[in-house]
Amino acid sequence: MNSEIIKPRILKGFRDSLPDEEIFRKSLIRKLENVFESFGFVPIDTPVLEYTDVLLGKGGGETDKQVYSFIHREKHDISMRFDLTVPFARFMGMHSNDLPLPFKRYHIAKVWRGENTQRGRYREFYQCDFDIVGTDSCLSDAEILLVMYNSFQALGIKGFNFRVNDRSIFNTFLDKSGVKDRFSEILRIVDKIRKIGKNDVHELLRELTDSRTASKIIDFITMKGSYQDIINEIKTMCGGSDSRIDRFEELFSFLKNNIPDNNINIDTSITRGLDYYTGLVYETFLDENSEIGSVCSGGRYDNLASLYTKAELTGVGASIGLDRLIAALSGNGEFSNENKSVIIFNLDPRFGSRYLEISQRLRKKNIKSEVFYEDKKINQQFSYAEKKGIAFAVICGEDEFSKNMYTFKDLVSRKSYSMISFESMLDVFRKKFK
Amino acid sequence: MNSEIIKPRILKGFRDSLPDEEIFRKSLIRKLENVFESFGFVPIDTPVLEYTDVLLGKGGGETDKQVYSFIHREKHDISMRFDLTVPFARFMGMHSNDLPLPFKRYHIAKVWRGENTQRGRYREFYQCDFDIVGTDSCLSDAEILLVMYNSFQALGIKGFNFRVNDRSIFNTFLDKSGVKDRFSEILRIVDKIRKIGKNDVHELLRELTDSRTASKIIDFITMKGSYQDIINEIKTMCGGSDSRIDRFEELFSFLKNNIPDNNINIDTSITRGLDYYTGLVYETFLDENSEIGSVCSGGRYDNLASLYTKAELTGVGASIGLDRLIAALSGNGEFSNENKSVIIFNLDPRFGSRYLEISQRLRKKNIKSEVFYEDKKINQQFSYAEKKGIAFAVICGEDEFSKNMYTFKDLVSRKSYSMISFESMLDVFRKKFK
Repeated sequence: MNSEIIKPRILKGFRDSLPDEEIFRKSLIRKLENVFESFGFVPIDTPVLEYTDVLLGKGGGETDKQVYSFIHREKHDISMRFDLTVPFARFMGMHSNDLPLPFKRYHIAKVWRGENTQRGRYREFYQCDFDIVGTDSCLSDAEILLVMYNSFQALGIKGFNFRVNDRSIFNTFLDKSGVKDRFSEILRIVDKIRKIGKNDVHELLRELTDSRTASKIIDFITMKGSYQDIINEIKTMCGGSDSRIDRFEELFSFLKNNIPDNNINIDTSITRGLDYYTGLVYETFLDENSEIGSVCSGGRYDNLASLYTKAELTGVGASIGLDRLIAALSGNGEFSNENKSVIIFNLDPRFGSRYLEISQRLRKKNIKSEVFYEDKKINQQFSYAEKKGIAFAVICGEDEFSKNMYTFKDLVSRKSYSMISFESMLDVFRKKFK
Repeated sequence: MNSEIIKPRILKGFRDSLPDEEIFRKSLIRKLENVFESFGFVPIDTPVLEYTDVLLGKGGGETDKQVYSFIHREKHDISMRFDLTVPFARFMGMHSNDLPLPFKRYHIAKVWRGENTQRGRYREFYQCDFDIVGTDSCLSDAEILLVMYNSFQALGIKGFNFRVNDRSIFNTFLDKSGVKDRFSEILRIVDKIRKIGKNDVHELLRELTDSRTASKIIDFITMKGSYQDIINEIKTMCGGSDSRIDRFEELFSFLKNNIPDNNINIDTSITRGLDYYTGLVYETFLDENSEIGSVCSGGRYDNLASLYTKAELTGVGASIGLDRLIAALSGNGEFSNENKSVIIFNLDPRFGSRYLEISQRLRKKNIKSEVFYEDKKINQQFSYAEKKGIAFAVICGEDEFSKNMYTFKDLVSRKSYSMISFESMLDVFRKKFK
C-alpha cells in the first residue's frame, strides 16, 4: 500500500532546523528573553495570518510584492505576517486601552517574505523586536540602549559597538544649510556611505546641491571623537543648541555610567534610510563580523499605530537580527553546544527498571540523563553517546547493583571511576557541569 | 495623510495572546522543555510552509479539507502544516542518516487548521510532540511514560491519570473471538464508549456481531483492578500469554517503582480510534477537569516515514494538548503570574542616570527591575506598578542619594522601608522572591 514513495523535499528559501542549530537558537532566545524580562518587558503573540488589508494597509511598498497572500475558503484575503511591527501596531490599535502604558513588549517569532533567495536570504526567518510604547521620555531611549547592552553581554559577545544618532538633529542641520526641501533625497544618498564611500557620496550630494553644501554635509556625517566632542561640534554646525540637541546630550549623560565608552559611539552618518524613525536611531556592529552589517537596529518613532487608531502612540524600539547573530556566533554552522548529560548504559535487559531509576534519581538532582534502550554491544552504546556529545556513561551490571555502587566513565577525558557511591558519582558530575 | 483609519481586526478562529496569557504559556513551555531535555530529547524545527503534495501525501482524510493551501507566485502548491507529525516524518525521510538513532526529538510549535470555530476550536493552535524513533524496545515505551510523568509533575498538576493499553492485545483478543475481520468497525464503536456509554456500545456491537461476542468485548474493555489483576484477566480472555502480553507486563514492571500507582492504570477501552498506532496507546485525564478530555495522548507506531522513505522507522511518542492544559490550569483565563520585580520610581528628572544605575545594579543581582520613565505624580507611578503587579517600589530622591541609602515599599503588604543600605534592601527582595 505504501509502495509509492513521495520524495521528501522543502520549498526553496526554507530550511529545517536540525538539533544542533535549534539547541543553539533556543539558548540564544532564552538568554534574550531573560534580559527583556529583567527590564519588565512582557511577551505578546499575534496570529501568523491576518487580513491582507489590515497587514498591508495603504501598501504599495517593495515588501507588498513579497508577502505570502492567498484567498481562503471563506473568501477572505489572508496574508502571512512579513514583520512583527505591523502586527504590533494592529495589536496596539485593538488592545491599548487594556494595557498599562507605557507598554513594554517583546516578540520573538517567525515572519515570511518571498524574497529573492539568490541573495542568500531565507523566506522564513526570525525577528526579535522589543519596544517601549506610550512615552516620549529620554529615559526610555536610554533604557532601550541598556536592554541592547545587557543583551549583547548575556550572549557573551565582547566586541560590539552601538552607533547612535538623532535624525531630527540632521534635519535641523539641513534646515540651517538651506536644503531641507531635499531631505529625503539627501537621506537616501547619505545612507549609502558605508557601501559606496565618502567620495562618491560627496559627488552625488554635489550634483544634488552644490560643492560647498556637499562638503558641509560630508563634514557633518563624518564627525569623529568622544560623544562630548561630537555634541559640541553638532552645536557649532547647527548654530547653537536646541531642545533636540539638549535631549541627545542628556541621553549620553544617562548612559555614561551604564554603558562603557568602547561599546557606544555617536555616528552622525546613521540615518536608517527612509524608515519611519523621527528621532533617535541606532545600529550595532560586531568588531569581528562587521561585514554582516548591523545586528541590532531601531529608533524612536512618533506614531506606531496611526493606521489603526487615532490614539497617538509614540515609542522607541529595536530589532535584533537573530539569524545574522546565529550565523556570526556559530562560525559557519558549527554549533558548539555543550551536552551536560549522562547516559545509563544497558548491560542486561533484566535491569531495565534499575536503569530507569538511576536516570530518574539523577534528574531529581538536576542532572540530565537518558537510558540506552537496548542491550547492544558496548561499542555501539559508546558510539551513540559520542554522536550526541554526552559527557558521562554510567556502566552498571550485576556487580554494581548487588553492592549498591556505581561504575562510570568520563567520555571526554576517558577517565574511569569504578564501584563508587551515588553521592560521590554525583559530585564528579556536578563538578564537571558547574 | 493618515486620516483614513483601517479598522484593526483579526481573522475568525485566531487570537492575540496578551501578556498575561503569553507569560503563562511561556512558563509552561519552558518547564516542558526542561523535562524533555532532562531525558536527552533535542528540539528540531521545520518550515511552517511545505509543498502540498509532501504534506497531504495520498490525502483524502478529513484534515485535508481544513488545511490552509494556496498557490504562490512561482506556481508552487503550498500548504501550512496542520500537525507536527507529518513534517517530522518528512524530516526523518530527509535527515535520518545524519542523526543518531534512536532519535529523540521534541517540537513545540503552532499548526493551522480551518476548523469549524463554532465548536470552540481555534484555527491556530499549539502542538507539543515528543517521540523516540528508531527503536522497538520496551524501555523506550517506559521512558515516554516517564517523560509524561515528569512533565505533569513539573507543571505542578497533582491529580492526573495515565490510561494505558496495548492495541495489539485487543487485536489478539478479537482474533481469538473470531471477529478479527471486523477489527476497524469494532474499534470505531469501542472508541465511543466514553461518549455514548456501555449499553449503547453493547447494542452496536451486538448488531455487528452477536450477543455473546458483544458481551465478551464489553467485558474485555471494562476490566477493572490493579495492573497485575488486569494482565491476568487479559491472559485468561486471550487464552494464555504471548509475546505482546509479556511485553505489556514487562512495561509495568519497569514503571512500578517510577510512577505511583494512582497516576497510572491499564484501561482496555483506550484504542485511539483509527490512528496509526500499532501497540502501546495511552491517554491522560485530569481528575479535576476530566470533561476536557485527554490532555496527553500517543502510542507506538511501526513506521513513521513510510510515505517518504523505505527505511523503517518504528517509534513511540506522545502529544501534550497545550491549549487544553492552559485553559484547565488558568481557571478560565485568569492567569495568576507572579511578577517578582521591582520598579524604581522617578521623583526627580535630574536623577535619571541614578535610577538607571540602581536598576542595573539590581539586575546584576538577578532582580528584575524597571525605571519609571517620567517624573509623574506619585499616584500615577503607584497605579502603573499595581497594574503590572510589581512587588516593590524603590522611592529615592535627594535625601537618599546624598546619604547613599534606599527607601522602598512592599506593594503587596504596603510595608515601607526607610533609609536602609543596598545590601539590606537586596535581602528583603530576595526573601520575598525566593
